[in-house]
Amino acid sequence: MEIRTGYADYNYTIHVDYGILKDCIFRYTASYNSVHFLVDQNVHALYKDGLLSFVQNPIILEGGEASKSFDAFKHITETLLERGIQRNHLVVVIGGGATGDAGGFAAATVLRGVDYIQVPTTLLAHDSSIGGKTAINSTHGKNLIGVFHRPKAVIYDLTFLETLPQHELLSGFGEVFKHALLKDEKTVKRLMDATSNGVSLDMMKPFIISGIETKMHYVTSDEKESGIRKYLNLGHTLGHAIEYKYKMPHGMAVVLGLYFMMFASNEEADRNIFDLDLFRQYFELHGYPLEQLGTIDEAEMMTLMGKDKKNQSTDATGFVLMHDFGQCYFTEIDSSQLKKYISQLKESL
Amino acid sequence: MEIRTGYADYNYTIHVDYGILKDCIFRYTASYNSVHFLVDQNVHALYKDGLLSFVQNPIILEGGEASKSFDAFKHITETLLERGIQRNHLVVVIGGGATGDAGGFAAATVLRGVDYIQVPTTLLAHDSSIGGKTAINSTHGKNLIGVFHRPKAVIYDLTFLETLPQHELLSGFGEVFKHALLKDEKTVKRLMDATSNGVSLDMMKPFIISGIETKMHYVTSDEKESGIRKYLNLGHTLGHAIEYKYKMPHGMAVVLGLYFMMFASNEEADRNIFDLDLFRQYFELHGYPLEQLGTIDEAEMMTLMGKDKKNQSTDATGFVLMHDFGQCYFTEIDSSQLKKYISQLKESL
Ligand SMILES: NC(=O)c1ccc[n+]([C@@H]2O[C@H](COP(=O)([O-])OP(=O)(O)OC[C@H]3O[C@@H](n4cnc5c(N)ncnc54)[C@H](O)[C@@H]3O)[C@@H](O)[C@H]2O)c1
Ligand SMILES: NC(=O)c1ccc[n+]([C@@H]2O[C@H](COP(=O)([O-])OP(=O)(O)OC[C@H]3O[C@@H](n4cnc5c(N)ncnc54)[C@H](O)[C@@H]3O)[C@@H](O)[C@H]2O)c1
Repeated sequence: MEIRTGYADYNYTIHVDYGILKDCIFRYTASYNSVHFLVDQNVHALYKDGLLSFVQNPIILEGGEASKSFDAFKHITETLLERGIQRNHLVVVIGGGATGDAGGFAAATVLRGVDYIQVPTTLLAHDSSIGGKTAINSTHGKNLIGVFHRPKAVIYDLTFLETLPQHELLSGFGEVFKHALLKDEKTVKRLMDATSNGVSLDMMKPFIISGIETKMHYVTSDEKESGIRKYLNLGHTLGHAIEYKYKMPHGMAVVLGLYFMMFASNEEADRNIFDLDLFRQYFELHGYPLEQLGTIDEAEMMTLMGKDKKNQSTDATGFVLMHDFGQCYFTEIDSSQLKKYISQLKESL
Repeated sequence: MEIRTGYADYNYTIHVDYGILKDCIFRYTASYNSVHFLVDQNVHALYKDGLLSFVQNPIILEGGEASKSFDAFKHITETLLERGIQRNHLVVVIGGGATGDAGGFAAATVLRGVDYIQVPTTLLAHDSSIGGKTAINSTHGKNLIGVFHRPKAVIYDLTFLETLPQHELLSGFGEVFKHALLKDEKTVKRLMDATSNGVSLDMMKPFIISGIETKMHYVTSDEKESGIRKYLNLGHTLGHAIEYKYKMPHGMAVVLGLYFMMFASNEEADRNIFDLDLFRQYFELHGYPLEQLGTIDEAEMMTLMGKDKKNQSTDATGFVLMHDFGQCYFTEIDSSQLKKYISQLKESL
């Protein structure tokens, strides 16, 4: 399966399937004088004798957020330069969303930008590898330093997902679910039916592809997030605050944020757009810790949400809510109203 | 004097004159929610009670290359974030080329890019502040990490130049001279006449403006240096090697590189495009250490030039030479030929 981006220029292809990595990579590397591989250390350990046996002399990045520090940034760029990287070389970044963000930022800045390919290896990275955002973390928050730098291709070999720990699968599934909500009610229903006995990989491919297409729709019409790209933040405003406070995997926190989004959307519209009982049951069945929402502190959450880089006002908090499945809108909820919504949600649990 | 860039989009104005800073800045800041000033420490010390007395609570950067380290990059971005920078804030970078490069890179990456204004304070920065290149240094070479990020404006208040030490003036003048060569013979003659009694600021304004216009011509037609932007490297290939080896100010080394360029252009064309005696006398009169060229080691220079990030071949070295004043071409000179040119030049001195 190949999906082509729809920008005005600098388009690229997203290849999604099982067992495509090696052939696909070689199609691209042929036109470069040399290739540098940046590989997540856990992925390297799991696949160095298998899927990645063709990878020579990789630069190994610590898996996860550790690769998104300033020190790691220095290490990656200096190592690329030590190895003599030139403008006609290619960088291939293999790993989860964190590796993709860090490796992408290094590729974007070394020699003022060289070509790179994203090879996402987690379910969540179906999301993070699309859209050209690269980043490292600040002590003041995640992803606060970075640039936009489109890859030359994304090669998403779903074989990698087979070794994902269950909590990483659930975390990635949070974004798959979000993309279904952003699409339409039919997609949400089909996804819930397909996963009624639990989240497993077998049935995931069509939903991953649909998720990628949905994300691409938003990012191609608004790369720099001045307009509708914001809608991709569905569930993320409270989600980020919960992720930060409880050190919960990103996509799991997003599911909790989506549940609050459903609650608030119903309240603002004064009608039941979302059947809260149904979704609550579904999320709990799959192991998302919705009960955590019952323990959050209103004031603390509101402070954390105020720090979100997308929030520019202090008295009100910007939220993406829904008029209906597939129909987002952006609104500012003022502090007292927001506090009320959070309290009501807590009571309802 | 205002010069407008000629890109397809994201154009900006370069304001050049005496005493324009404050009024000009306020014209821009009005449309931002807040402004953050990054100021070179030497410039701050000299002007905090004068030209910069309106600047509140600046972030002070070490002057010179010290501000282009990874540590300084971390310090600048983290300080901006600590001060609560938001996407609708403006960064104003005040200082020489080094401060401009470092501050520009911070503005380009914090929150994935915020608007910024360059306020160059050295003669050399008439060059470095135009073109949108930002950078920090690697242990493997200067300017190896960075991005392209166009400013919203360049405000070049020539009053700052009055406190420049003589060697910095001479260094900046090297690039003024290069821009005259890139323009035409008439401009070179006028510049040489105007400076026949030494380089001073009084007569510099028209040549600075002409230099900016010349640089802009090259960068707007080729922002990412795949074609004619390369011509701006006139004199820089050997210049960079000399700068590195002898720790000479950039523009002074460039003058030595320009002299070699003239020599090699004559040789390659087999005619006297440039009157070498005339230029040698002129450069020596102004204090450029041409005698250093007599002591360079061929092999060492060739190794250093091979490391230049613009050189992608190993057996030959890419050079910008001239068919005539204002008429550049790019050529690769193979190793044995290059060695011969350097030896001949040494003997001629
Ligand atoms: N750029 C964007 O647009 C964007 C969007 C969303 C999230 N993100 C970023 O993505 C990151 C989260 O991504 P993630 O969830 O993939 O996290 P991750 O990269 O930290 O990976 C999670 C863990 O799984 C391991 N892993 C990766 N692939 C594996 C595999 N195939 N088998 C077994 N283990 C594997 C990793 O080593 C790591 O320990 C965050 O840093 C977030 O900020 C970026
Ligand atoms: N981005 C580009 O396109 C580009 C082009 C050329 C050069 N550069 C970079 O520019 C830098 C060189 O620029 P530079 O020569 O301006 O060096 P600089 O910024 O290091 O300044 C030189 C010295 O002069 C001091 N200074 C600055 N303004 C002064 C003033 N008005 N009065 C007195 N002292 C003052 C500084 O504190 C410093 O000590 C290098 O880092 C080079 O890589 C960038």
